[in-house]
Amino acid sequence: MSTRLTTSEGYAELIAKYDTFMFDCDGVLWRGTDVIDGIIDVLNYLRSHNKSILFVTNNASSSRRYYKSKFDKLGIQASVDEIFGSAYASAVYISSVLKIPKDQKVYVIGMEGLEQELAEEGIQYEGGTDPADNTLAPFSLTTFTHPTPPIAAVLCGLDVAINYTKISKALQYLLHNPDCHFLATNEDSTYPASGGILPGAGAISATLRYALKRDPVSIGKPNSTMLDCIRAKHDFDPARTIMIGDRLDTDILFGKSGGVSTLLVMTGVTKESDITGPNASPVVPGYIVQSLGDLAVLANPA
Amino acid sequence: MSTRLTTSEGYAELIAKYDTFMFDCDGVLWRGTDVIDGIIDVLNYLRSHNKSILFVTNNASSSRRYYKSKFDKLGIQASVDEIFGSAYASAVYISSVLKIPKDQKVYVIGMEGLEQELAEEGIQYEGGTDPADNTLAPFSLTTFTHPTPPIAAVLCGLDVAINYTKISKALQYLLHNPDCHFLATNEDSTYPASGGILPGAGAISATLRYALKRDPVSIGKPNSTMLDCIRAKHDFDPARTIMIGDRLDTDILFGKSGGVSTLLVMTGVTKESDITGPNASPVVPGYIVQSLGDLAVLANPA
Repeated sequence: MSTRLTTSEGYAELIAKYDTFMFDCDGVLWRGTDVIDGIIDVLNYLRSHNKSILFVTNNASSSRRYYKSKFDKLGIQASVDEIFGSAYASAVYISSVLKIPKDQKVYVIGMEGLEQELAEEGIQYEGGTDPADNTLAPFSLTTFTHPTPPIAAVLCGLDVAINYTKISKALQYLLHNPDCHFLATNEDSTYPASGGILPGAGAISATLRYALKRDPVSIGKPNSTMLDCIRAKHDFDPARTIMIGDRLDTDILFGKSGGVSTLLVMTGVTKESDITGPNASPVVPGYIVQSLGDLAVLANPA
Repeated sequence: MSTRLTTSEGYAELIAKYDTFMFDCDGVLWRGTDVIDGIIDVLNYLRSHNKSILFVTNNASSSRRYYKSKFDKLGIQASVDEIFGSAYASAVYISSVLKIPKDQKVYVIGMEGLEQELAEEGIQYEGGTDPADNTLAPFSLTTFTHPTPPIAAVLCGLDVAINYTKISKALQYLLHNPDCHFLATNEDSTYPASGGILPGAGAISATLRYALKRDPVSIGKPNSTMLDCIRAKHDFDPARTIMIGDRLDTDILFGKSGGVSTLLVMTGVTKESDITGPNASPVVPGYIVQSLGDLAVLANPA
């Protein structure tokens, strides 16, 4: 059973219990380009009380560097070292865990940020933002050839330029080479944007998942690969750490699987019917607040 | 246990048993634009023996009329009345079963043939080949508005111009209006093209299926809607009818569910390991031939 917090006393007790605060971003700190009310005060309050702050996002369309510039634009203090994205975690996974040969490439269904993170890890790739693969022109196998050496992995993230050529090429690589890894940066079904909900990275990789009848290895939340990636850079005591997010099946499950506490906010994609009633999710957060911004009352007592 | 036929005696006995021959097309009669050897002789042989011939295809990118022109180009005799496509069956389903109000539109993820069949049934639609929705430009909810009256159904078929705008709009319609029907022309995961295998209609609708965590109502094979559609136009005795196809999970399952006999050909997407060995499909065809074209030996005895 979750504890619902609605009072400053409750918020203060919560904050006293933890040293490390891991935040999901979309739907928690902002929606699209709109910062949620009170968020800046809350983060400043945590920093002034010497809390460690980490941003843990499945957003794979931005590199950490680009993501940092988003924080800057929105007026939220953050450093690149505090930001863990699924694009970064995917690049680390490919270079450190899969250790694919240096002369083999990754085929990318994804955006510039994902390419940046791969490049920083020294991973060769194709697809992504290459104009040749960003087209609605018909795709034909008669002019398609497999590269030598073969593609070592298909990595699929959110790609708002998704098209039939990319899906078809990725399918060829995965069908042709049984050793080709099928990876997803994350499997979020949707994400909260300004004005509503849009298809997430999981909806993009679903094309290949369905065509192949095979599931990708997913790197982002809720999978532990992301937490391994954080642990390699930051010491934290799970008993004194809380994961704050808007999604039960990614953020909250991620926290629970990683043995840290969890706080659900209702400013993202989770609806009241997802946590109560007959269709409630089996994933139960430790705490629930309406908005993380509500904790700003601590920074600005009446 | 399937009966494998490899001799002219076997082929002749098979043909004597049936009056109505239902054919899948891609992977059975042709691959892409290549007619499979012997097919024309086999079809002519059946016609000369007064067999009824029906072409039952999940291909939803072509209207029956356009499909007829493909038969013509490939030199295969066919009439529009003999052709049943999932685009046609979808249009009939929307007009005759769903009976959506005349002033409400269908949002189409699909190609020209699907639009043609909808138009012939007097169904209003948007999306499809509309240039406004065939773009790789970013999609934003801030400039998106819901039409009045709302979209009555999202119909998803194979769309080689699939893109994020179409997926996002379809998602909005389905999220916004709980009465909006979610339909798929068919759910083929892939289809056999010249030179290999490409993502099918099921891989396209998989995006929405994943984003919504909801399955579409699928019209094409293996579902009975397609058979109902054929029955409304043609009398056939199921005991004297055989369905010939290259896919276990569509063609063969369709035949078995409809109570007709089934013949699997190996010229399409099914591999030997799909019918024998530890990973064999639970869907077992009545008969197997390597190629439908092998039956041409009857037309051209040595």
